[in-house]
Amino acid sequence: MNRAPKVKSNLEYLRKLFIMPDSPDKFIEFGHELLEMIHDFFKEKGGIHSSITLPELNYIFDKTAIPDEPHLIKDVLSEIKTKIIAHSVKVGNPYYIGHMISAIPYFMILLEMITAALNQNQVKIETAKASSFVERELVAWLHRLIYEKPEQYYRKNIQNPQVAIGNVTADGTLANLTALLVAREKAFPAQKNFPGARTAGMARALAHYGYARGVVIVSTRGHYSIKKAGNLLGIGEENILSIPVDKHNRMDLGKLDRRLKTLEKGDDAGTKLIAVVGIAGTTETGNVDNLKALAEIARETGAHFHVDACWGGSAMLVDEYRPLFKGIEQADSVSIDAHKLLYCPMSMGIILMQNERDLNLIRHSSQYIIRKNSVDTGRFTIEGSRPFAALKPWAALKIIGREGYGLLLKQAKKSTTTLQTLIDGCGNFETLNLPELFILNYRFIPETVRQKITFLQNRTGSASAEISPKRREQQIRKVNHLINGLNIKLHKALRRDDTSFVSRTTLESTRYRPQRIVVLRAVVVNPLTNAQILEEIVDTQNRIGLEIWEEFKPVYKRICEEYQL
Amino acid sequence: MNRAPKVKSNLEYLRKLFIMPDSPDKFIEFGHELLEMIHDFFKEKGGIHSSITLPELNYIFDKTAIPDEPHLIKDVLSEIKTKIIAHSVKVGNPYYIGHMISAIPYFMILLEMITAALNQNQVKIETAKASSFVERELVAWLHRLIYEKPEQYYRKNIQNPQVAIGNVTADGTLANLTALLVAREKAFPAQKNFPGARTAGMARALAHYGYARGVVIVSTRGHYSIKKAGNLLGIGEENILSIPVDKHNRMDLGKLDRRLKTLEKGDDAGTKLIAVVGIAGTTETGNVDNLKALAEIARETGAHFHVDACWGGSAMLVDEYRPLFKGIEQADSVSIDAHKLLYCPMSMGIILMQNERDLNLIRHSSQYIIRKNSVDTGRFTIEGSRPFAALKPWAALKIIGREGYGLLLKQAKKSTTTLQTLIDGCGNFETLNLPELFILNYRFIPETVRQKITFLQNRTGSASAEISPKRREQQIRKVNHLINGLNIKLHKALRRDDTSFVSRTTLESTRYRPQRIVVLRAVVVNPLTNAQILEEIVDTQNRIGLEIWEEFKPVYKRICEEYQL
Repeated sequence: MNRAPKVKSNLEYLRKLFIMPDSPDKFIEFGHELLEMIHDFFKEKGGIHSSITLPELNYIFDKTAIPDEPHLIKDVLSEIKTKIIAHSVKVGNPYYIGHMISAIPYFMILLEMITAALNQNQVKIETAKASSFVERELVAWLHRLIYEKPEQYYRKNIQNPQVAIGNVTADGTLANLTALLVAREKAFPAQKNFPGARTAGMARALAHYGYARGVVIVSTRGHYSIKKAGNLLGIGEENILSIPVDKHNRMDLGKLDRRLKTLEKGDDAGTKLIAVVGIAGTTETGNVDNLKALAEIARETGAHFHVDACWGGSAMLVDEYRPLFKGIEQADSVSIDAHKLLYCPMSMGIILMQNERDLNLIRHSSQYIIRKNSVDTGRFTIEGSRPFAALKPWAALKIIGREGYGLLLKQAKKSTTTLQTLIDGCGNFETLNLPELFILNYRFIPETVRQKITFLQNRTGSASAEISPKRREQQIRKVNHLINGLNIKLHKALRRDDTSFVSRTTLESTRYRPQRIVVLRAVVVNPLTNAQILEEIVDTQNRIGLEIWEEFKPVYKRICEEYQL
Repeated sequence: MNRAPKVKSNLEYLRKLFIMPDSPDKFIEFGHELLEMIHDFFKEKGGIHSSITLPELNYIFDKTAIPDEPHLIKDVLSEIKTKIIAHSVKVGNPYYIGHMISAIPYFMILLEMITAALNQNQVKIETAKASSFVERELVAWLHRLIYEKPEQYYRKNIQNPQVAIGNVTADGTLANLTALLVAREKAFPAQKNFPGARTAGMARALAHYGYARGVVIVSTRGHYSIKKAGNLLGIGEENILSIPVDKHNRMDLGKLDRRLKTLEKGDDAGTKLIAVVGIAGTTETGNVDNLKALAEIARETGAHFHVDACWGGSAMLVDEYRPLFKGIEQADSVSIDAHKLLYCPMSMGIILMQNERDLNLIRHSSQYIIRKNSVDTGRFTIEGSRPFAALKPWAALKIIGREGYGLLLKQAKKSTTTLQTLIDGCGNFETLNLPELFILNYRFIPETVRQKITFLQNRTGSASAEISPKRREQQIRKVNHLINGLNIKLHKALRRDDTSFVSRTTLESTRYRPQRIVVLRAVVVNPLTNAQILEEIVDTQNRIGLEIWEEFKPVYKRICEEYQL
C-alpha cells in the first residue's frame, strides 16, 4: 500500500507545479535526480524482461479508480522507479536482438525534454512556429534521400505552404494509411457530377466508375498495417490481395502476373486496382521486393505505387545499400519510420509523396484552425494534434550525420553477418532467409536431424527409387513439425532464461515451402551488440536447444522407425 | 552558416553516444545544461510568437539535404536554442489564451525523459511489460470516471487481456476514428454469408444489408475529425450529416428529429444511421450537447452513440460539472484528450468503450507480434508502434489527484467568468456564447454600434411600423458585416502586438443567426492566468480595437445615413 503523506490540495501549491520562473529549484533538483535514475536504469544488470510474472503485474496495477488526494512528486517518482522502470523491457540492452527496436543515443532523451517543454502542437502555425519549418526541412531531407529530385525542386517546395511533399505521422501504420488514402482518392477522383471518393464514400465511388470492388496488392510478407488500412478505408480486408513470395521473400512476379490477369475476367471482372505496395525491408525477414518491376507494373495498370520502407528506408543513407532499393524513386509514396533505423525513440513515421500535389487530395480545413489560406501543417495530416517529434530525427541527422549513420548501418550489417556465421558454424542451426537488411531467420535443428532432412530433400531421380516422392515429403513434414514444436519450446525457454532475446515467427517461404516453419528472428541493429555478445547468445540457444531436444528425441526416433529413415 | 568544427566519424565515438554506463558524465552534463536552458525559456520575457516573420523562418530552415558530416552535440543544442526555441510559440504563457493548449506542470518534462529512456513500444508485451499494465490501469480510471460501473466490473476487466475497455491513441482524432470504425462494424456486422464490413468493405456491406449509404450525425459544431473519419472510413464526407445548433451551440433536437424523419423517405430511403455523435465541449464554443436526448435517439434508431469529449471529458473530475454531461454514461464510446484538460504535453487521446467486447470487432493479429492468443495491447489499436504516453496522465492523476484537478478546473471556470465580466463591463465588447467549459466567444463592437444594433433588434410590433422587418434585418447585416471586418483586422493587429493571444473563428449560431459572425475565442485554462492578466488583455484589445475603429467609422457613418439609423 502506498502510505504517502497527504499533500495539501491548494491552488498555490498547484500553481507552483506550473511556474518555473518562481520555483526553479524543484525543477532542477528533480531533473538532476531523474538524470541519475535514468543513468542507473541503463547501468543495471539482470534480465531483459524482469522476472516478474504477468499475474504479479496485474496485482500491482489494479487500482480501479483515480486517486482522490495528491501524492508528493518524489513519492510518485519512486513508485515509477520500483513498479515501472524495474519491470520495463530493456530494449536497449545489446543482448536484446528480437525486434526492430534498439538502444537510442542518449541525446534523444534530452531532445524529448525540449519537445515537452516547448509543447508545440504541429497542427497549426499559431501553436508551432519554428517547429513547423523544422518539420518541413526534415521532410525535404528524407524526400531527397529517396527521390533525389533536382536542387531547385527542393528550393521551390521545402517551405511552400501550398503543398506538402510529405507528412510526419504518429507511426508507420499511419504513414501507410496516408499513402493508401491518397491512392484511393486517385483511383476514384472527382470529375463532373462526382465529387471524388473522399466526399462520396467508397460505395458511390465504385458505382460511379463502374467497378464492383477496389483492391490493393501486396506480398504475403506485407505488414499487417496494410490489411488494417483495407479495413479502415472501407476497401475491405478481403480486397487486400496477398501475392505469394519467392524463396527470398520477394513478391513472386510470375504469380503477380497471373493474379493480375485473373482480375480482368470471371468473378473478378469489375475490379479496380487501387495500389501496388512494394516492401523495402519486410518486417519478418528484412528482404526488399523487386521495386523496379513493381513500379513498371503499377505504371502499366495505372495503380498508385506505394513502397513500405518503414524498416529499410533509412538504409538508403548508405550508398552501398542503394542498389537494393532500385525503383523506389518511381514510387508515388514511400513510408519510413524514425524509431527504427534512425534510432529515434517511440514513435514517429514519415510519408513522402513523389508528387507534391498528391497530399492536396486529402487536404481539409476548418473555421477556427487550419483555415484554407493558412500555412498550417495540419491541413494535410490524418492526425489532428501532433507533437514536435520531428526535432529528434532532425537533430540526430545533424549530430550523427549521413556519415555516422553510414557507419552505424554498416556495423549492423557486419553484426548480422557475424551472427549468420556463428549460426552456420555451430551445426545445430539452420539459416532460413537471405539477410538483406539486418534480419536473420533461423532455427535450432540438431545436426543429425538437419543432415537427415537434407539427405531426404536431395534424394531425387533414380537413386531414390526405393522411396516415393510423396512419402519422402511426408517424412520431411513430420520432422519439420517436430522441429517446429522444438523451436516454440526453445523460444519459451529463452524467454525464461531472459539473458537475451530473439523473437519468433512462422514462415511459409523457406526451402521447405509450402510447409510453415517456425523460425527464430534476430534483428541485429544495436551498435553495442558485438561479436562476443552474439557468440554468447548462440551458445545459450545451442545449450538450451540441446537440453530440450532430449525430450523430443523419442518422438524423432519413432518417426525414423516409421519411415525407416 | 554553421561553421561547426568537424567531428570525427568513427564507430567508437558513435557507440559512446549510445552507451551510458561507460560515459555517464556527458549525459549528466548535457542534461544539467538542458534543464537550465529549459528553465531560461520559461523565464524569458517578450512576445508570444517571436517577432520573426515566416519568410525569415523560410530562410533559416532551407537546407535541402541531409548533412554529411556529424556536428557536435553542443553545437546542435545551441542551434536548437537560437533557431528553434527562440522562435517557438510560448503556449504556456499566461497571456496565451487562444487555444486548447496551456502551461503544463514541470514534472511532465521529467516524465517525458523517462518515457524516452525506457523507449517501450506499447504495441506488444515483448517490448512493453509494466507499461502495458499502467496503460490499462489508466484506461480503467477514465472509464470509471465516465461510466461509473460497479467495482467488480473494473476488477474483472482492468487487466483482462481478452478485452479492452479502451485504447490510448495518438490524439483525439484517432480516438474519434476508432469509435466510428467500431460503429461502422456494428452497423454492418458479420453474419451468415457475410464477413462484416471490415472484411467485405463498405460497398459490399451496404449492398448486403440493402442500404444505399451509411450516415453519421453530428452538429455543425462537430470537430473536423468527424468529417475526416467520414473520408477515411469510406463512408464519405457528404454522409456526415451536419445538424444545426440552437442558440447555445447544442444540436437542435427539433431539426435533428425532422432530419431523421426525412432519412426514411424519398431520395434518402435506404440510409443506414451508423452513429450519432454528441459533443461534450465543442471546440469553438465549449458547449455540451444534450447527451441524454441524443442517447435516447441513438437507442431508438439502433445507432452507435459516440461522445466526443476530447475537450470537456476531464471536467467530469469535478462533481459540480457532472450534471452538464448527463447522458454520457449511455454513450457506446467516449473520447478524451490528455493534452487538453489533463494538462499533459502533446499529444495523447483515449477512446473508452462502454461495452468491453466492442473493441474486439476491430481486433487483429499477425504471425510475429500481436499473436491471437497474446496479451498485446496492439491487437486493439489503429496505430502500430506507440510510445508509453500513458505514463504522463497516470502520474499526473496521482501527483495532482482528483482534488487537485478539481481546483485547477474550478479556477479555469473562475477565470472564464472574470474574463466575461471584464468583457461585458467594458462596453465595447459583446459576449456571444454561454461559456460552459472555459471558452468564451466575444467580439469587439464600439458601444454606440452595439446599442444601435440592439435597438434595431428590439424594434418589434407597432412601434417600429415606420421600418419594415426586412429592411431592419438588412441594416443589421450591413453593420455586422462591417464589425466582422473590424474583428478580423483587430485579430491581425493583436497578432502583431503579440503581448497576448486569443484565436478567432466564425459562428452562425449567435443572436444574429443565421448571419455568420466573426468572433474572438478565448480558452481560459492556464492556472497562471489571473484577473490582472485578463484585465491587461481586455485593455489591450479595447485600445487597439478603438484605434482600428477609426478607419471603419466613415463606412459605418455611410451605412447609418443610407438607412437613416
